[in-house]
This record gives sequence, structure tokens and C-alpha cells, in this order.
Amino acid sequence: MTTTEIGQAYSRVRTYSEQICEPLETEDYVPQPVAFVSPPKWHLAHSTWFFETFILKNLVPNYKVYDPDFNYLFNSYYNNIGERTIRTDRGNVTRPTTRNVYAYRKYVDAQMLELLDELADPAALAMVELGLHHEQQHQELLVTDIKYILGHNPLFPVYRPGCNLVDGTNPATGWEQIPEGVYEIGHEGPGFCFDNELGRHKVYLHSFEISRALVTNAEYIDFINAGGYRDFNLWMDEGWSWVTHSNIAAPMYWYRQDGEWYYYTLDGFKKINPEAPVAHISFYEASAYAQWKGMRLPTEFEWEIASQTIPWGLRWEWTNSAYLPYPGFSKAPGAVGEYNGKFMINQMVLRGASVATSPGHSRFTYRNFFHAHERWQYTGIRLAR
Amino acid sequence: MTTTEIGQAYSRVRTYSEQICEPLETEDYVPQPVAFVSPPKWHLAHSTWFFETFILKNLVPNYKVYDPDFNYLFNSYYNNIGERTIRTDRGNVTRPTTRNVYAYRKYVDAQMLELLDELADPAALAMVELGLHHEQQHQELLVTDIKYILGHNPLFPVYRPGCNLVDGTNPATGWEQIPEGVYEIGHEGPGFCFDNELGRHKVYLHSFEISRALVTNAEYIDFINAGGYRDFNLWMDEGWSWVTHSNIAAPMYWYRQDGEWYYYTLDGFKKINPEAPVAHISFYEASAYAQWKGMRLPTEFEWEIASQTIPWGLRWEWTNSAYLPYPGFSKAPGAVGEYNGKFMINQMVLRGASVATSPGHSRFTYRNFFHAHERWQYTGIRLAR
Amino acid sequence: MTTTEIGQAYSRVRTYSEQICEPLETEDYVPQPVAFVSPPKWHLAHSTWFFETFILKNLVPNYKVYDPDFNYLFNSYYNNIGERTIRTDRGNVTRPTTRNVYAYRKYVDAQMLELLDELADPAALAMVELGLHHEQQHQELLVTDIKYILGHNPLFPVYRPGCNLVDGTNPATGWEQIPEGVYEIGHEGPGFCFDNELGRHKVYLHSFEISRALVTNAEYIDFINAGGYRDFNLWMDEGWSWVTHSNIAAPMYWYRQDGEWYYYTLDGFKKINPEAPVAHISFYEASAYAQWKGMRLPTEFEWEIASQTIPWGLRWEWTNSAYLPYPGFSKAPGAVGEYNGKFMINQMVLRGASVATSPGHSRFTYRNFFHAHERWQYTGIRLAR
Amino acid sequence: MTTTEIGQAYSRVRTYSEQICEPLETEDYVPQPVAFVSPPKWHLAHSTWFFETFILKNLVPNYKVYDPDFNYLFNSYYNNIGERTIRTDRGNVTRPTTRNVYAYRKYVDAQMLELLDELADPAALAMVELGLHHEQQHQELLVTDIKYILGHNPLFPVYRPGCNLVDGTNPATGWEQIPEGVYEIGHEGPGFCFDNELGRHKVYLHSFEISRALVTNAEYIDFINAGGYRDFNLWMDEGWSWVTHSNIAAPMYWYRQDGEWYYYTLDGFKKINPEAPVAHISFYEASAYAQWKGMRLPTEFEWEIASQTIPWGLRWEWTNSAYLPYPGFSKAPGAVGEYNGKFMINQMVLRGASVATSPGHSRFTYRNFFHAHERWQYTGIRLAR
Repeated sequence: MTTTEIGQAYSRVRTYSEQICEPLETEDYVPQPVAFVSPPKWHLAHSTWFFETFILKNLVPNYKVYDPDFNYLFNSYYNNIGERTIRTDRGNVTRPTTRNVYAYRKYVDAQMLELLDELADPAALAMVELGLHHEQQHQELLVTDIKYILGHNPLFPVYRPGCNLVDGTNPATGWEQIPEGVYEIGHEGPGFCFDNELGRHKVYLHSFEISRALVTNAEYIDFINAGGYRDFNLWMDEGWSWVTHSNIAAPMYWYRQDGEWYYYTLDGFKKINPEAPVAHISFYEASAYAQWKGMRLPTEFEWEIASQTIPWGLRWEWTNSAYLPYPGFSKAPGAVGEYNGKFMINQMVLRGASVATSPGHSRFTYRNFFHAHERWQYTGIRLAR
Repeated sequence: MTTTEIGQAYSRVRTYSEQICEPLETEDYVPQPVAFVSPPKWHLAHSTWFFETFILKNLVPNYKVYDPDFNYLFNSYYNNIGERTIRTDRGNVTRPTTRNVYAYRKYVDAQMLELLDELADPAALAMVELGLHHEQQHQELLVTDIKYILGHNPLFPVYRPGCNLVDGTNPATGWEQIPEGVYEIGHEGPGFCFDNELGRHKVYLHSFEISRALVTNAEYIDFINAGGYRDFNLWMDEGWSWVTHSNIAAPMYWYRQDGEWYYYTLDGFKKINPEAPVAHISFYEASAYAQWKGMRLPTEFEWEIASQTIPWGLRWEWTNSAYLPYPGFSKAPGAVGEYNGKFMINQMVLRGASVATSPGHSRFTYRNFFHAHERWQYTGIRLAR
Repeated sequence: MTTTEIGQAYSRVRTYSEQICEPLETEDYVPQPVAFVSPPKWHLAHSTWFFETFILKNLVPNYKVYDPDFNYLFNSYYNNIGERTIRTDRGNVTRPTTRNVYAYRKYVDAQMLELLDELADPAALAMVELGLHHEQQHQELLVTDIKYILGHNPLFPVYRPGCNLVDGTNPATGWEQIPEGVYEIGHEGPGFCFDNELGRHKVYLHSFEISRALVTNAEYIDFINAGGYRDFNLWMDEGWSWVTHSNIAAPMYWYRQDGEWYYYTLDGFKKINPEAPVAHISFYEASAYAQWKGMRLPTEFEWEIASQTIPWGLRWEWTNSAYLPYPGFSKAPGAVGEYNGKFMINQMVLRGASVATSPGHSRFTYRNFFHAHERWQYTGIRLAR
Repeated sequence: MTTTEIGQAYSRVRTYSEQICEPLETEDYVPQPVAFVSPPKWHLAHSTWFFETFILKNLVPNYKVYDPDFNYLFNSYYNNIGERTIRTDRGNVTRPTTRNVYAYRKYVDAQMLELLDELADPAALAMVELGLHHEQQHQELLVTDIKYILGHNPLFPVYRPGCNLVDGTNPATGWEQIPEGVYEIGHEGPGFCFDNELGRHKVYLHSFEISRALVTNAEYIDFINAGGYRDFNLWMDEGWSWVTHSNIAAPMYWYRQDGEWYYYTLDGFKKINPEAPVAHISFYEASAYAQWKGMRLPTEFEWEIASQTIPWGLRWEWTNSAYLPYPGFSKAPGAVGEYNGKFMINQMVLRGASVATSPGHSRFTYRNFFHAHERWQYTGIRLAR
């Protein structure tokens, strides 16, 4: 990107985070109902801390940090401060206030924009670009974490009237055929990518077919009605434990009332749209559904090849690939190197993007990843055979 | 109380709850960091719900509840709403907002004051009085829960400058001697009391001595320095498990820095005042300290007799009495009967009052009770021998 | 006791422990299915270790311990052995073998009997007597722990044909009346007692009535059929949590099959005898049953006075007294002082004795104690009012 | 296999299981110290149950099962028996006795050998062969579970004098170079294999080097001494949690005493042999070690190709491949289909074989798999780059 472009991108991305939070009440910024959901206040501060720590402190001479305490409150890791060590849960840190966090953003933004006016060093620009993509990742988490917080309130509050992200429908049907052969996988070229997409390399694919449409709510209800959640033969062993111990019988946010299915959406409690692609399901559920249909999930390599000719972008799509390094993967030295590599165990790859993904934050080679039981993201199912 | 008195009492008590919350930021009203601490917002709403449920709904013809959802949000028990059952943690319920909770208080207060203007039925007046004492109990919890929330924030925010509740000193010294004999225990007469104080009855006390002063911070530091937390001979078996598994080595809110002891107070992080009575200790710690001194804690019966001639009121004082019913104790029918009786197992009695107790909410016969490991209240030690 | 008497008592008690284990297979000696149940092998070794440690090592010149490793395997406390520290669960310690444990007993018994032939020092004789009472306590635990191990095997193996301890019936009916007054409580005089019975002291009792019979299985089934386990108004708050989280709906070892109640007994799986006193119930169940009958459990002081005129001995009887020290209670110095005092928190007193209590191991002043949820002992209900 | 061959194989395999148990005391057959370790008694019975259930009950007319209760005791799944449902931990099931389990083996073996004399149906013979391979898998578990049971006894008992499986040394050194290209993976041809090895297929491998030797104890001690267990940059995020929460600082069975490293072996407590390949390490440790060396673990596909020219068989070798289905993998219908497929999540593949693997139970295409933290098997490290 040019200096002008990056300045514009910076403003656009930073503003978008705050637009996501516009409908919130102050109280909504605070809680962390489960470990994997962070308080909106924390997302806003943490993405700001990234720019302060990796750009401003390194590049602005005599930069004065906004508040020295913020370093251990808003980096992502466990901290201690000598003998006064306190381990805190993010959801209990009421101070700094939301107002103060917005002031922090304003302070950092002003300094960043001043800096960006004349920043030309390619390594520094790359770090800014990484910061923007990092903030876009937190934007999607903001949306899903807000949904989690409001959706676990017995009052089912509306986030934004009319903002029902889950009701879009499949733009295509039928099956795409991909022939056997050696294919190239991974990112190459000038655009941005994360380190886990690098190392463009060859894979051998056997011929396969992949659905042009995602599994719909109506199809998924068939699975439920056929007893899919009660037939252990369809499930991974650990998936069956999860279903049993957590009493799972439907996707997250689904409720059955008087024989009808409803779901919580960001527009409130609604009757389920049968034609929309199913959302908020775990890998275990995606895998059991595929097993029930006598089919399977695609690998991430099959997906990457097929995605160049089929429509995608409504749901993060579970693949049957574990999140592992590409040949030649190496971690950058220091804190930035912790971005991806250390999570390459016990997680499954999702490909595509979702209705909650920020504009401009998707590409064929993007590798998203979550644990097999996680489902608070807008996750869905595409079948292969 | 007369009709005028009860109206004045109502205004005074209800206002006091809001005064306690005055220094809070909106964010501080939200979290529930541990199960035994409730969000300030919840205390404000729950004490209001009490009046709405037990007074207004019963006595005001065609009373219109402020919000029908509030019943299952703000009673103290687990609830379900048919097929839409959701179990929620109090700390994650961001809506209704704090502003809305204050509006709820205003709505109920207006109706209550109108009602109290002409309320004469003794049973109804007694229920109002119970509601006020109930709210005073929540006032002390408000203070201690706010301290817990702010005191577990790594920034150690000040609640109210100058408001340091823990630095008062003992007004007396020496030992009080009480002779052997049959004594009368429990409440009798016209004033208010809870059901667990009723059933005035006789007990036989053997002669004993009881300290006129509470154990001070300096004395407690001697215990720490003598290795009190590392000598299992001093501890109850379950106390030793607690010390070991929870890594306890000092009272709650104490920190050692560069060889000096500090504590978090509502006025911020301070050096410890050696002459103030020790606070925020568990029964286990009180018991171990007494064992180390070769003395013991008084029983609640000894305390009740002695308290008529010695000063008290700075700390809730752990006794060596388990919380059990008095002879002839019986529970009121219905929800109000759940107030005390069902907690009469595995808790220890504390007598007296503390610096956080609301004005007018203490008496010789008052029986407070907590689990042996709990210490977020202003609890202290009085020795007997 | 005289020297001859103590020698005879030693042989009798030590032999009885082994008679209890006679019907066991080698495998039955090994497991510890839950923390509160110890392996029979451990009981046999631990009671032997007591004599070796507190008598032989102190009194026999140049005494050679049977195996130096046994000290940390068979004392009751957590141990470490320098850098080779290993924390072990008793149920996984397969070596020493059962055969070796019996050899250990034989070795210690031979030396003990030789010593007892000429032992005259009163303090030493008192320690031997304590060791015998200690072993008798473990004998009752042997019976109940064996029942637990066999009773949690899906095959429900018979311990000893004809040995059905739970089918005895009440020898009396009606109510005993005890007048108000000052009474004396606790042990006095020459016979043996534990330190927790000492400090004979006065208590004031208000007049009460106590049942001459224990609650029977038939009466308890009425409580079940009336929905007693589903009405939270009858339960202590913590009792209700226990019922709910542990899915309790009947006494331990009870099973409902084709509309009939059965229980596991040491004589195998049997139809319930309606006239026998109910057994294997927790304090929570005893308390809820009493609440349902509109009555209460006696205090331990009421029980001690009444027990001099009513029959008892079939079940350990839950009282509504917490296990606390008597006035003037003091712990002996050293390890023996840990016997009772450190358990005086969060436990309830049971009085009397049970069908599993060893002969000669019961008296009016005996104070047994367990946690409110424990019920693998032969525990029952006597009502007061 | 021919009918004669299968009869001989049956006798050889079945006898070998009992030879493994020869040094055990009866008590050693009982415990299950952790969920992933089964009692030796259970292994002996379960592998027998397999033949009774899948062969004898299907093929022998009027076959009389040895004991109908054994079905729910010795299959691998959760069971219930109507209203008498009991969930049991394997380690607490003292009956049937070990003697009875041996009688069960004898009974089934007699009937099996009689049947095998004339068995010609290929599907039936394949099922017998599967049962033998199944028993061989349990033989390796028998060795490692016995080591776990004895190795967690503070007495560190010797299993069999002279039987020290961990002291063998690497037969080769240096690096093997494998060129880029399309390779074939998976089983093909007449020999036995499990379903997870089927679906011979092509993969594209980039060129790589793989070590001819496994990492030795001396090399691993260098890693420990360099602070490898304390540098979180070397670890997977979940690996670092494991190290931290479980206090891991060395391989399983290692102890440091007076500055020297020792380990528990089946021949007792010994000084560590520096030249032997390190054993009993988790995937997390293997991965951190590779990271520290600036290298990596091979994928299972790289391993399968390289293993045809380098020596292996001392340790199960962690690969950096997740356990996932091969293209075209399908599960057999019914219980046998549960053998492998349902475990294809959150586990890592190990290739090769170990010193504890039964003779004849290894091949190039064998896919073993465990969770990333498990290390009670004889697991080791081979590096790639």
C-alpha cells in the first residue's frame, strides 16, 4: 500500500470497530461470560495496544504511553507485577471505563495518523498493515462476542433492529467436479497474508465433488428430526462426549417452542428461516451431519482449489483438515511470531468467510481455525464426496 | 413503628443504598467476580423486587409490575421460563441497564410511599420493616462486594477518597470476667428481629474471660511472622486444606512489598495500620490464631452475655458456634420462611457488627453467619479463655 | 485394665479385624473407590502401624521396624521422601501385597504380646488401650468400606451368606418425655473415652419428647412416595444442592425395580424389609424427613440424657448438633492430639452405635461425626419434638 | 493365513498375553490409577470377550457364554442394566477375580481352538485375525499400564529383573535425504492391516532430510539444562498450559536426585543411560525439542517413505500429522466400524513401533495415535528438516 492508502485504510478500519459498538449500552462492554468470549471494551483496547506497542513505541521518538498500566491489562498474555501479582478475569476489570478506552483509541489514532503521514519504511508499513488485519479479526470477534453476551441474556435484547445476519440464502446449487492432480496451495504474490498461508506448495488431490451450496436450516432440521443428536454412530468419540455432557440437541442460539424452531439473531428472537444456511454449529455437528448424509467434509486443500469456481462467504466452513504448518513454515522471531504457529495443535481449519467478516478481510488462502466444539462464530457446512 | 416513622425509615434506608453506589462508574455495577459476590446493579434491583413482590403486588389493587421479566432476573432463586430456559450468571446480565434499575427503584419507591401514607395493618407494616432490614443486609453486601470488585482490579481503584473503613482502633483493653450460671439468650420484646433470634431460652455457661479488645494487625503480623500459616498443628483439618490449596498466607487484600505489609482499602492501596483490628479473615484463620495464643474463640452464647458490658461493632466477630436453630425455632410458611432456616448447616455464627454495617442494623441478639473459609466481609477476632 | 486383661483384649481385638476380612478375595483388599473409603489392606496395615509407631518404637529397646517404607505408606497423612516425592492414591498401591500386610500384623503382634506380658506403666497401658479403640473404629470402617466396594460392583457380590446387618427391628415404641433442667454431659470416671468426650459439664435442656423407635423403611418409603426428594421446602439449602447435583432419590444402596424397592446388603441383593430401621441416609435426608413430619432431630445433649432410658444401638443416629469442642476441651500435644480436635468444623454429631460397631465399643457419651452428605455408614433417624 | 497357521498364531498370541502378566501379584491386576490406564485383569478379559462376542457367539451353534454379566463388564463401552444401572470405574471392580478371568480365558481358548481346527470361511478367519491384532494392541498396553501402576507406587517395585526396555541404543547416525515427488501412501496387498491404513493414495512430498537416529537421553538432558521447559517460546500454546498446570519438567518416570537423573524402569529405579533414545515424552515435548533444535518433526507421510530405508522400532515416533482419514476411508458397519474412525480428532499420529510392541505387530503403514499430552507409551523423537 502507498502512504495515502494506508492512512485511509487505517481510518476506515479503526472507525469500523467503533461502528460495530455503536448500539451497545455501557454495561454491554464489560462481561466475559466464557473464556473464549472477550469483553467488547477489551477488544477495543487490545487492538489499540497493538498499534501503541508495535508501532508508536518503536517509531515515535520519546513517545509517551497513554497509560503504563494498559500494557498488562490489554496484551493477550498472562502478566505479573512483582509482589502485587493479581490474576484477573477480563470480565471483572471494570476500570478503565469504556469512556477511557475510547479516549485511549483517540490518543493513539491521532499519533498514528500523524506518523502515517510520512511513514515510508516498508517493514514499518507491513507492521501497520498487520495491525489492521489484526483489528479486522477482532471486529469479527466483536460481532460474535456481542451476540454471545446479548444472546445469553434471558431478555434476548436486540442488537440493532433489522440487522439479522443469519437469513441470507445460497446463491447456487449442484455439485462441482474437481479432477485428480497436483495443485498449488498457499499464498503467493504482493497482497497481504498471515504467516500461516505462506509456503506455496504442491499437494496431490484425488478427484472429488463439492457442493455449490451450504447445508440449510431445513436440511439440518431433517437431521435433528431423524435423531441425529441421539445416534452415537454418527459422532466422533469426543463429539459424543460433548453432546452428552453439554446436553447439545441443536445449534447454538436455537430454541424449540410449541413444536417450532426459533433462534436468537442480532435482530432479536425470530422464527428460523428454513432456506438460510445453518449457522453456529461445531465441527462435531458438521462431521456428524456429513456422516448421516453418507458424505464427508472437504479438506482445506480441496476447498482452496474449489473455492475459485464456487460461491462462498456466508459461513465459515469447517474442513476435515487439522490446523498444521505448511511445508517450510517458520515463525517470525519475537512476539509477532506467536501469532499463529503456537496454535497449530488440536484445532480444525475453517475456510471462506462469514457474514460477520469485515469487508476486505477474505481471500482464497485464508486459514481460520477453532476447536472442534466451538460454535459461537458464524460456522456452517459444505459437503464433499 | 408508626405510619410516619415507617415512611421516614423507608426513605432513609432506600436513599442510603443509592448513596453507597454514588462513587461507582456504570461499569462497576455489572460484574460478579465470584459466586458469593453479586453485581451492585443486582443488589439495587433485588431489594426493590422484594418490596414489589411482597408488598405492592399483594396490597395495591391492580398494581402494574414495572417489568414482568424482572421477577426471574431479580429474585434470589434459580428460575426457568418454559422451553426458553436459560441459566444465567448474574455477572453477564448487562440488560436491564443500571439506568433502568434506578428507574425501577424510583417507580417502586413512589408507589411504596403512597401506600405507606395510609398503611396501618400490623402484618403489612411488619413485612415492610422486614424489607428494610433485608435492604440493610444488602447494603453491607454492597460495600463488601464493591470492595471485592475494585480490590481485584490490578489498578486498585479508590472507591471514595478518605473512606478507609479499616483503620479504626480498639476503644478498650483487658479481660472481662463472666461468672458461671444459667443465662437467657435470644430476642424478646417489641423491637425488630429475624426469626433465627427468636425463642428466648436458657443456656448454662461455665465461667470464662473474654477480651475487651479485638486482635490487632500488629498482633496478627506476629502470628504470620511466627510461621502461623505454615504450622498445620494450629489449623482445623479443612482449614489446612484451604490454606494449602488456595495458597493463603495473609488476610484478604494484604500484599507484602519490599518487606512491608500493605492492604487494599476503599481509599486505595495503603500501608497497614498496626493498631487497627485485623479484618478480612476467615474462621479458619481466627481459629488458628486463637490456637497459637493458647486461647479460644467465644461461643455465640458467651458473646451475647458479654456484649452487654464490652464495646463492639468494628468487626463481625467469629464465634466457635455453628449456626443452628434455637430450641423452638420454626420457619414461617412460604417464601419468607426460607430466609434463615435452610442455611443452618456448615456455617459459623458471627456476632456484633462491622464498620460496614448500616446504621441502626445491630443488636445484642443478631446472628450473622458465613462459611468457615469466607472472608470478604469485615471479619475479626475476639479471644476468650 | 490389668496386664492380663490388656493382653487378652489385644488378642481379641486384633483377631476380630482379621475375622472381618475372612470372606474377602485378595482383589477386594485393593481399591479405594472414593476418597472416604480406604482399601481393607490399608486398614489392616494402618492399625498395625499405630502399635508399631506409638508403642513398639518407643518402648522396645533396639526395636527393628518391619519395613521402613511402611511409615509413609500407612500413616494417615501426606508424606514426601525428598526428591523422590510421589503423591499416591491409596487404591493404586498394589504392593506391599495383602500377604505381606498379614505378615506385618503377625510380626507386630508377636512383639506386642511379648511386651504386654510385662507392661505396667499406666501411660503406656493407656496408649495400648487407645490403640485398641482406634482399631475398633477401623473395624467399623472395614465393614462399611467392604460394603461400599462390593455394593458398587455391578455383580452385587455376597460378602458372607446370612450376614444381613440391616434387617433388625425396633425393640420399643412411643415417646419418652424429658423434663426441663440443668443436666451433666460428657464422660467422667475410670473407663476409657476419647478426648472429645471429656470435660464433663452442665447444659440447660428445655423439656422435650424423643421417640423410643427409629424411623423404619416403611415410614421412609412414605416420605419418598409423598415426593419428599422433590420438595425443596423440606431441605437445607446445601442439602437441596446435594440432592439435585448427585441425583439422590433414595437411601444409598436402594434400587427400584418393577415398582418394588430393593437394597444391596452384605448378604446380597434383597427386597427391603419394611419394619427395619432405615439405614444409609445422610444428615440432609434425616433433616428433610423430620421437617416433613413436622418434628426435628434431637441435639446430642438431649440424646445423651434420653439414651439412659431408651433402647439404642441399631443405627448411628444423626443429631442436630454440630461437632464442636466441649467447654475446657484441650488437645494432647503431638500426633495423638490430632485425633479429634482438628475435625471440629463442618461435621454433625451422630450418637449411639450401629449393627456394624465392634462389641464393647459403645457408650452413652460417645461422639461420632460425619459430614452432612455422608451415608455409607449404618446411619438412621430418631425424631424429637 | 491357513487354518493351521491361524491356530498356531492364536495359541502364540494368547499365551504371550499371559506371559506378560506372569510376574504380577494378584493385587497388581486390579487398579486403574488414571482413566487411560486399564487394570491388567480388564485387558485379559476384554481381549477374550472380543473372541467370545465376535466369533464364538456368531459361529458356534448353541454357544453357552461363560458368564452373561461379562458382556457389560468387559466391552469397552458404557453400559446399563435397566433400573439397576450402575456406572463403575474399572479399577473398583474386584470381582470377577483374576483367577476367574484366567478360567474365562481357558474356556474361550478351548472353544476357539476347537473351532479353528475346521474354520475355512475367509470372513470368519479375517475376524479371528483382527481379534489377534486387537489382542496384540492390548499386549503393548498391558506392558505400559503395568509400568504405570508399578511406577506410581512409592516403593518402585521391579517388574522383572533384567527387563529394562529403555536402554537400547541407536543403530545408525546421520541424515537420510528424500527427493521431492509424488509418493504412494497406505496399505495394499494381502497382509493384515487396520481400516485406517487403507485407501492407498498419492501424496506430494517436498524434498526433506530425516535423521537416521532418535534423539538420545543425553541430547534431551541438554534441552532440559538449557531451560527448555521454562521457555514458552518453544511450546505450543496448549503445551505450555500443560507444562505449567501439571508441573512438567522432565519425561515421565524421570527423577532428579543429588544432581543426577534417574528413571523408573521395569527393572527398577536406575541411573539414566545417556545413549539410549529418550522415552515417555509427549507430543508437546517432542515439538518443543524440535523447535529448540531449529528443526521439526516429520509428517506421517514423510515417515512412511523414509522408513523403508532407515532403522526404526525402538520408540513410537511422534509425527507432526494429525490423525485424519485417508481419501476414500470408510467405516465398516456395526461395532467393528467403531474401531478407528471415531477417534480421528484431536490426536496426533505416531509411526514405527516400540520395544514394547508385540513381535509381528509392526509395518511401514501402521498408524498409531495418541493425544498430544499422553506419554505413558514408549514414545520418542525423530527429527526432520
